[in-house]
Amino acid sequence: MAVASPRPSIPAERFAARLEAARAGAAEAGLDALLVGVGPDLVYLAGYRAMPLERLTMLVVPATGRPTLVVPRLEHDPAARSPAGEAGLVDIVDWEETGDPHAIVAGIASRDRSRPRRVAVSDTLWALHVLRLEAAMPDASFTLGSTVTSRLRILKDPDEIELLRLAAEAADRVVEQIASGRLVGRTEADVAREVRDRLIAEGHETAEFAIVASGPNSASPHHEPGDRPIEAGEPIVLDIGGLLGGYASDVTRTLWVTGGDPERLPDPEFGRIFDAVREAQSEATAAARPGVTAERIDAVARALIESAGYGEHFIHRTGHGIGLEGHEQPYVVAGDQTALADGMAFSVEPGIYLEGRYGVRLEDIVVCTAEGPVSLNRAPLDLRVVDG
Amino acid sequence: MAVASPRPSIPAERFAARLEAARAGAAEAGLDALLVGVGPDLVYLAGYRAMPLERLTMLVVPATGRPTLVVPRLEHDPAARSPAGEAGLVDIVDWEETGDPHAIVAGIASRDRSRPRRVAVSDTLWALHVLRLEAAMPDASFTLGSTVTSRLRILKDPDEIELLRLAAEAADRVVEQIASGRLVGRTEADVAREVRDRLIAEGHETAEFAIVASGPNSASPHHEPGDRPIEAGEPIVLDIGGLLGGYASDVTRTLWVTGGDPERLPDPEFGRIFDAVREAQSEATAAARPGVTAERIDAVARALIESAGYGEHFIHRTGHGIGLEGHEQPYVVAGDQTALADGMAFSVEPGIYLEGRYGVRLEDIVVCTAEGPVSLNRAPLDLRVVDG
Repeated sequence: MAVASPRPSIPAERFAARLEAARAGAAEAGLDALLVGVGPDLVYLAGYRAMPLERLTMLVVPATGRPTLVVPRLEHDPAARSPAGEAGLVDIVDWEETGDPHAIVAGIASRDRSRPRRVAVSDTLWALHVLRLEAAMPDASFTLGSTVTSRLRILKDPDEIELLRLAAEAADRVVEQIASGRLVGRTEADVAREVRDRLIAEGHETAEFAIVASGPNSASPHHEPGDRPIEAGEPIVLDIGGLLGGYASDVTRTLWVTGGDPERLPDPEFGRIFDAVREAQSEATAAARPGVTAERIDAVARALIESAGYGEHFIHRTGHGIGLEGHEQPYVVAGDQTALADGMAFSVEPGIYLEGRYGVRLEDIVVCTAEGPVSLNRAPLDLRVVDG
Repeated sequence: MAVASPRPSIPAERFAARLEAARAGAAEAGLDALLVGVGPDLVYLAGYRAMPLERLTMLVVPATGRPTLVVPRLEHDPAARSPAGEAGLVDIVDWEETGDPHAIVAGIASRDRSRPRRVAVSDTLWALHVLRLEAAMPDASFTLGSTVTSRLRILKDPDEIELLRLAAEAADRVVEQIASGRLVGRTEADVAREVRDRLIAEGHETAEFAIVASGPNSASPHHEPGDRPIEAGEPIVLDIGGLLGGYASDVTRTLWVTGGDPERLPDPEFGRIFDAVREAQSEATAAARPGVTAERIDAVARALIESAGYGEHFIHRTGHGIGLEGHEQPYVVAGDQTALADGMAFSVEPGIYLEGRYGVRLEDIVVCTAEGPVSLNRAPLDLRVVDG
């Protein structure tokens, strides 16, 4: 059943502050304008959610002056009713079906009547629009919008942390429901469908992914659930998430299913890799304090798994930022030298994968705070041995 | 309840033919390679569905030689299990978390050891990847992948038509269920939730959109359903769709809700605009024969609505192609001179919108065949006056 939680909503003055911060960031980066298409940056800056489609919707944030939202005429009303539209924070310019919206954007981006020299486009903007904007602004160099927006979005405010917490707890409840239900004999795909239904029932707007990787499939980190029936005496890696109140959940737990047979407990090597992952997850989380770099968190987890003798089997980064997107900055990987700061939220999800046999992964969403790291997930991290 | 329909699946030899057609198309267009990211082109060419994320997944189709699928190492297994992977139609190249996948793609795109001069990127590829590929291939000019893939995807084969038909009929059943249920006093958002649940219950994998636009909101073509309670004596524009078997549904019907009160029937002007839209929809559909241009279909609908005196209130194009994407080529709009051909599928959806009062839109998915136009939707197009 859906659990009604009071959800914070983002007040209009927050959008005003975000838009001003984006404008200032664009100016500081030497941009003529930041060009934001449909997607998470548009939700962040204007509260406007639209489908990414072939018709261009674009927020133009010039380095000086007011932002403009360019929209297809038939979407004028939804745009005007968006938080930024309602609060009068943006001018709205409609384009007609036979118009040239990319030329309109180029014109707005060069308000001072010279041609724009340098613009940024939001990271998830489609090539369809990127190439047309490039053609409409042949003298401009293009850079990624995240150079401006990441620095804003990477620091979550208390309302955003609260939404991430509600999303995490909803996903935790689904993990608990799946772990305590029947599993043996069901296919992975069937369990994945149950996960998606339960994510929605627990308040998510969308169930974005449901990895159910059983037995040898658990050695494939991004396994696509299939027709394999779950057997007694094997692990299941459960990695699930969606969007709740617009913010992402993402939790991974590893179960062991006995089918009620006391002979079918985990073998010693499984116990060793589980313990290594458990310790790596715990120590990497504990290291997540302000000033520490994102890559350092990865190094902490990797060193522990290497010292357990499984370094070559930890074949992915330790984690990724999370917020309006399931994956966003910072990335917990060698090379990401972002210094963690109060309000950053990211996954800590080491894993060990023994091809052909099995794998283990454990993932919490962790928030870096001045008082130390806080895990938003509450589902127990210990090995859950269940009848299934 | 879910209705079990036998669904066609695309056989492996079809992917071989599509990949070869893409290669030939790339060669003919003077491209060194076609670069296909996660999205509908990748599903079409390789049968591979993955989430569009910051890690690059890219099918490289060179003008000569075998295609290569570049994937994150942790997604090697799902890629290898994709139809094109299983059938051995593509080489698979993994990249590691700290690797540079854009450089790998650039290297593969220039197999003859010179630098690529001209490449195409799939239309929905994120700017994140487009700009990095541009940086990795500084001498190359970039064009849109649709210049190659649209010519293939625009012509649906019988399996694809069958999937579109199943999707259309499932959406029709939802229209019927909503039209025959309670409406008055419920909010638009509540009815939209029911639409989404029913689309899933009728076999869709995803419910992509559910426009429920009541009373004056029906004059906003892409209205976002909100807290407005539906009242007796007003119209509702219902425009709904999702993906079923990977193919899109999209149907629009306009209802009139009386609340059971015989005094609350449509007023004469509503009757006039409904009849004009009904005639435009019907005549534009009838005109959809091989050799006729897409823009001509738009002109047929527009001329009828203009002659009824409502030309300025028909504020959008008449339709769009449909297939793996909800909106794809051809576009039924002035300027699209695509000559219709056997196997093209598109919406025919004229509308009239009287701001502040109400609107009407009617939409079927139509397939152009050698024997004439075929509407895949079967829900009646006549004005449906219901108690609600």
